[in-house]
Amino acid sequence: MTLLVVGSLAFDSVETPFGKRDKVLGGSANFFSVSASLLTKVNLVGVVGEDFPEEQLTYLKSRNVDVAGVDRVAGKTFHWSGKYNFDLNEAHTLDTQLNVFADFKPVLPAGFRKPDHLFLANIDPELQYAVLDQVERPKLVALDTMNYWISGKREALLKVLKRVDLLFVNDAEARQLSGEHNVVKAGAAIRKMGPRTVIIKRGEYGALMLEQGHAFYAPAYPLEDVFDPTGAGDTFAGGVMGSLDRWGGFNPATARQAMVVGGVMASFVVEDFSFDRIRKISLDDVQARYGELRRFTDFKDLPTQE
Amino acid sequence: MTLLVVGSLAFDSVETPFGKRDKVLGGSANFFSVSASLLTKVNLVGVVGEDFPEEQLTYLKSRNVDVAGVDRVAGKTFHWSGKYNFDLNEAHTLDTQLNVFADFKPVLPAGFRKPDHLFLANIDPELQYAVLDQVERPKLVALDTMNYWISGKREALLKVLKRVDLLFVNDAEARQLSGEHNVVKAGAAIRKMGPRTVIIKRGEYGALMLEQGHAFYAPAYPLEDVFDPTGAGDTFAGGVMGSLDRWGGFNPATARQAMVVGGVMASFVVEDFSFDRIRKISLDDVQARYGELRRFTDFKDLPTQE
Repeated sequence: MTLLVVGSLAFDSVETPFGKRDKVLGGSANFFSVSASLLTKVNLVGVVGEDFPEEQLTYLKSRNVDVAGVDRVAGKTFHWSGKYNFDLNEAHTLDTQLNVFADFKPVLPAGFRKPDHLFLANIDPELQYAVLDQVERPKLVALDTMNYWISGKREALLKVLKRVDLLFVNDAEARQLSGEHNVVKAGAAIRKMGPRTVIIKRGEYGALMLEQGHAFYAPAYPLEDVFDPTGAGDTFAGGVMGSLDRWGGFNPATARQAMVVGGVMASFVVEDFSFDRIRKISLDDVQARYGELRRFTDFKDLPTQE
Repeated sequence: MTLLVVGSLAFDSVETPFGKRDKVLGGSANFFSVSASLLTKVNLVGVVGEDFPEEQLTYLKSRNVDVAGVDRVAGKTFHWSGKYNFDLNEAHTLDTQLNVFADFKPVLPAGFRKPDHLFLANIDPELQYAVLDQVERPKLVALDTMNYWISGKREALLKVLKRVDLLFVNDAEARQLSGEHNVVKAGAAIRKMGPRTVIIKRGEYGALMLEQGHAFYAPAYPLEDVFDPTGAGDTFAGGVMGSLDRWGGFNPATARQAMVVGGVMASFVVEDFSFDRIRKISLDDVQARYGELRRFTDFKDLPTQE
């Protein structure tokens, strides 16, 4: 099967309680691709400036990512600067320089127009909509968004959500989008906007999948050291979508496995800055943590009542 | 087996985003007893004033709670007033009137001095220590505490912790007690203080059990309506300790089951104020939510690598 992602490649400047890195590689589609490519072939669409290192594109190619959809244009690459306090669940944006990303109009190469699985990473919902107009209906369309679009481009977001099967949001985004504080109610309200499945990402508390009459909780891997949460959400989504593409598409069983794989992927990326940790990971490492998570959450039926 | 609890019986005045109740029944040992007594026989030690309703003691007796250790003395009953905002995980204390609780010196009836399981609810650590001096070594000693004692009576708390097997704390208390932000590290640091097992309560995010070389995550039941979190922690502990006492004591399998039962009990108590919901619950209701939680968290092994 084939998996298509459209989103950003970027530089990040990040400060956490454990250290600081200036202008390291990041971007939603970049994190997504590195994660998903451990599991399946990925077609990547994005834009970079003249300053983006060719080595990263070479690296992506070496991981089975087709970068034919990555445009290199005059100007500088998108650059995000942010900070995390001890509450690593919340990023504080210090600066956003859109640069070449300001004029990004995704155009899909001819060979990218029949994906089985599509991930619309966190970009302007009008661009996400424009991508949908360029593909034959995939088996599954997933979308990520953020507070900036929920408040600033709500109408455009609601329009594209009607064409989405699976929405990735965090607790705060789910509340903002739905107007419901309780996440179960928020999930139900969001499903009425289009997506039949809502995945609510909760950082160190794991992730919830909410569907009509069905819910699943995926545990977070209990880490002793979280260095940098940047990219965790996109890496999680990459694990989810990569798993679905690898193991036969979305159904109740594969969706659960995919969520847990997503959590495992995210647990690796946060253990160091940028791609420093996750680029060293093999599928065996993923399987090992997956097994640990099974033991971490397993419990038996209660004894029958005496 | 026998389960002993020492702690408070109280009046609570509670305000949540969903309503307000003045002077309803509460108190750590009260919530604990109502919860645990669904599972096993409970011996209760506490103190009440002249204003405490005899009907509650009669009700507890009807649930197989032995209230021989509840002293009724001249004066008013302990009265806590608090408020919750939309973040129901955090209580804001508005007022605490200790009243008869200020002079509470627990004295165990002769028949209470050989418990199999002992729960030292959240009271002054010097009183918790004094209780331990009145019992033959139980199979398991569990203790609950709070920020007030961690900062105000740290030495006394550290002294009693040396005699404790199982500590119940929430995230913030674990961090405050250990000086470690990360909960896995916090758990390890706390184990060095005495308890071989630390249970970290995380409200709507479930609970973590941390031991040397072993960790378990118990999911929270995904509720649509949380009315009042007051007593959730003690009700959780009542489910845990009641289960251990009922089903053969602490071992790796029963501890996991007990944690999930605790979470189920807590999910009921928060659905209404005071004991309004949990007093209507049968063991069948507990089994039903337990089964739902198994389905909510179950996932299969990954396919073997192609």
